[in-house]
Amino acid sequence: MEFWSYPPAFDPGYRPDPKSRYWFPVRETMPAAEREKAILARLREVMTYAYARAPFYRRKWDEAGVHPDRIRSLEDFERVPVVTKAELRAAQERKPPFGDYLCIPESEIHHIHGTSGTTGRPTMFAIGRDDWRSIAEAQARVMWGMGLRPGDMVFIGSVFSLYMGSWGTLIGSERLGAKTFPFGAGAPGMSARAALWLKLTRPKAFYGTPSYALHLAEVAADEGMNPREFGLELLFFSGEPGGSIPSIKARIESLYGAQVIDCGTMAEMSPWMNAAGTKETPGMMLWQDFVYTEVCDPKTHARVPYGKQGTPIYTHLERTSQPMIRLLSNDLTHWTDEPNPCGRTYPRLPAGIYGRIDDMFTIRGENVYPSAIDSALNEIAGYGGEHRIVISRDGAMDELLVRLDATEALYRAGAGALDDLRRRTEDKLRTVLGVRARAEVVAAGVIPRTDFKARRVIDDRDLFRSLKQTLGG
Amino acid sequence: MEFWSYPPAFDPGYRPDPKSRYWFPVRETMPAAEREKAILARLREVMTYAYARAPFYRRKWDEAGVHPDRIRSLEDFERVPVVTKAELRAAQERKPPFGDYLCIPESEIHHIHGTSGTTGRPTMFAIGRDDWRSIAEAQARVMWGMGLRPGDMVFIGSVFSLYMGSWGTLIGSERLGAKTFPFGAGAPGMSARAALWLKLTRPKAFYGTPSYALHLAEVAADEGMNPREFGLELLFFSGEPGGSIPSIKARIESLYGAQVIDCGTMAEMSPWMNAAGTKETPGMMLWQDFVYTEVCDPKTHARVPYGKQGTPIYTHLERTSQPMIRLLSNDLTHWTDEPNPCGRTYPRLPAGIYGRIDDMFTIRGENVYPSAIDSALNEIAGYGGEHRIVISRDGAMDELLVRLDATEALYRAGAGALDDLRRRTEDKLRTVLGVRARAEVVAAGVIPRTDFKARRVIDDRDLFRSLKQTLGG
Repeated sequence: MEFWSYPPAFDPGYRPDPKSRYWFPVRETMPAAEREKAILARLREVMTYAYARAPFYRRKWDEAGVHPDRIRSLEDFERVPVVTKAELRAAQERKPPFGDYLCIPESEIHHIHGTSGTTGRPTMFAIGRDDWRSIAEAQARVMWGMGLRPGDMVFIGSVFSLYMGSWGTLIGSERLGAKTFPFGAGAPGMSARAALWLKLTRPKAFYGTPSYALHLAEVAADEGMNPREFGLELLFFSGEPGGSIPSIKARIESLYGAQVIDCGTMAEMSPWMNAAGTKETPGMMLWQDFVYTEVCDPKTHARVPYGKQGTPIYTHLERTSQPMIRLLSNDLTHWTDEPNPCGRTYPRLPAGIYGRIDDMFTIRGENVYPSAIDSALNEIAGYGGEHRIVISRDGAMDELLVRLDATEALYRAGAGALDDLRRRTEDKLRTVLGVRARAEVVAAGVIPRTDFKARRVIDDRDLFRSLKQTLGG
Repeated sequence: MEFWSYPPAFDPGYRPDPKSRYWFPVRETMPAAEREKAILARLREVMTYAYARAPFYRRKWDEAGVHPDRIRSLEDFERVPVVTKAELRAAQERKPPFGDYLCIPESEIHHIHGTSGTTGRPTMFAIGRDDWRSIAEAQARVMWGMGLRPGDMVFIGSVFSLYMGSWGTLIGSERLGAKTFPFGAGAPGMSARAALWLKLTRPKAFYGTPSYALHLAEVAADEGMNPREFGLELLFFSGEPGGSIPSIKARIESLYGAQVIDCGTMAEMSPWMNAAGTKETPGMMLWQDFVYTEVCDPKTHARVPYGKQGTPIYTHLERTSQPMIRLLSNDLTHWTDEPNPCGRTYPRLPAGIYGRIDDMFTIRGENVYPSAIDSALNEIAGYGGEHRIVISRDGAMDELLVRLDATEALYRAGAGALDDLRRRTEDKLRTVLGVRARAEVVAAGVIPRTDFKARRVIDDRDLFRSLKQTLGG
């Protein structure tokens, strides 16, 4: 049965015919205008619900002169003030532990997770029992769209801790009726064992981060295995932009002989698969019927037209414990309403989510995204797969250094080949970024790999600044 | 509703009155003789089920001249040949991936886990959808007995990967209606963050290994926290014998200001909490109505009388995917049928499970258990909390060296105090083990801690042997 209501209701025994392309055919393929009408009704319901239960929202909206009853169009909704992560943190500090935006009694909390920041106060997610089921339902729907069916084996190769990526995939896979293999990641020695288990069990799908998939392929090679022996048909990724970066996607698809599908937005937005590709549709579609996404001007927070670039602002349509209403992502993307090959009538992010606006840095006046450098390097023959971006200041001038490793073969070929790789890299970076960058080539494998999300930018200018502060300069 | 049948049936909405001491009052408090009669009926049902579906069991029992129909007493059942871990491994090699003891269609497999051995072929657990629910039900029952109630927060501080300990606790906690906080463990830096989260969220219960609880207390102290600030009421442990070793238990209870409860048998036996203490009953009771445990002579595999020592042999009474029927643990314990303070009518292991018979080593003809050394050290003032056991051969004589660390305070007190600690340790070890051991005291904190199970024995004799083999000696 295909329900669409708020609070949400689901038939726990429901599963579509395995031959059906869609989990909820009506919700996924209805005309966009009809869906928007329904979304508007949902938005009013969620706002009314939150206004009655969350002092956080009541205060915020009263101050802004906004009220659930007066939201009569999606344009009206654009005037609802955005929620920032800093506000959530402050609300939890004011009312520990879960903040004054928790809309259910504490006794109904089913799971606790949180942000995995290593410094400062983390934000806690208190997820209700009903929400846990809604999350599972939505994640199962999206994974169905990827081509997963009951009985398929799903290998989860990401750490099970605070990180919602692993848990969302787990419960989606369980709800879908797959064989779920929650292997995890993160502990020393786990990658070699993951490779062994992949070879033994030959799952249909792998979930993790793009960085980890690349690392795991190297570990497998070290163990004398070819990742193609795992027999995977599909790798789906979140947590990093790599799954939508053509050169990285192609590299992983060729290493594993399997399709790469990108998905995922923010842990706070669980079911975070609300932006996701399908078997037939590359990039990420915005599954608007469970999380309503507006791609907005980063300053005015009003929607930009299709075809334009902006930052996603997300609103839960099926969460009751800590519903997020216009959560500002500070990510950057562009969207389109062109038809999707899979027939779903959702808007799409054809190039996925580029990364966080905060990740952007400025070199001599030019904005540079780390993901653009990652993308460029992956197009260069002889690139060994890992790099670091070091930004420094030489006098008044910003300097950009990209330290990359070479493949084994190229490194063994000697100084001439290395120098050639260096020159090719510098040319490519100048073309792609529009600024001059120095490249430095190091031996294969010496730059540490990650089993989680890559952290590659080293900004020595910040170091300089904080040093000056410490010294009272 | 309180069901007891095979295959098992449960009411997913059932939860006892929070004031009830028991989850299933009838099953937990019935006269032992009456329970044994019901167990006999269950045993025949499980055997009939497995005989019809698993070539593994049919072949094994036909060869031994055993048949489900002819099991008319618990004594008859003692003649059913035991299953060893090596046989399970061989069965999976013969019929990959899950072996010819899988009793459900592959399409009904819900979760995949396995043994976490670092060398050789691992064994895979294929757990069916119904079994996953039965496991959750049983684990919830036992956790209820520990005093956990709906709405209590349970912090799971063990790695989520192959290890069934974490998963069993997770689904038991979910089924019970607790707030489940699956924090995990194992990745670098996680312990400091665990301490921060424990302080922020103040859960009622912590689950992990005793070694990790000791390690975490040290990490918390390094971070300027006192583990008592976590406000825990309960720590429950599995995976190591520590939770039933009085000196270790006392040390942890004093560090955290909370009660320690021991539980757990083998991953294969999930619901592995089948041996577990309760709020009122120390040691471990054998929850015979979902896993039937016989404490047996390690050679004859017949039950030893109550009061005697033997090895547990386990039989699933509520599993349908890969039911274990007389799985040999090779652990060592002793059992009693004396009444339990909590009123449950189960047999009990008053000193828990000492450890694996395989862990035992022989020094100059004396059998020594690593857990006995651990226990002894924890009674010594000035012991810093970690040690290694090094066995070597000097000519024809085995040498036992225990390398232990001192507390910060004792280490700073200088050579005299260290020498005194060394002497006290040697005296204690001689008394407890009956053999002479050398002690070597090192600085506080230099011996690596673990966030999983401690591996403390270094047998240089094996090294010597394998070296000789390699050299063709």
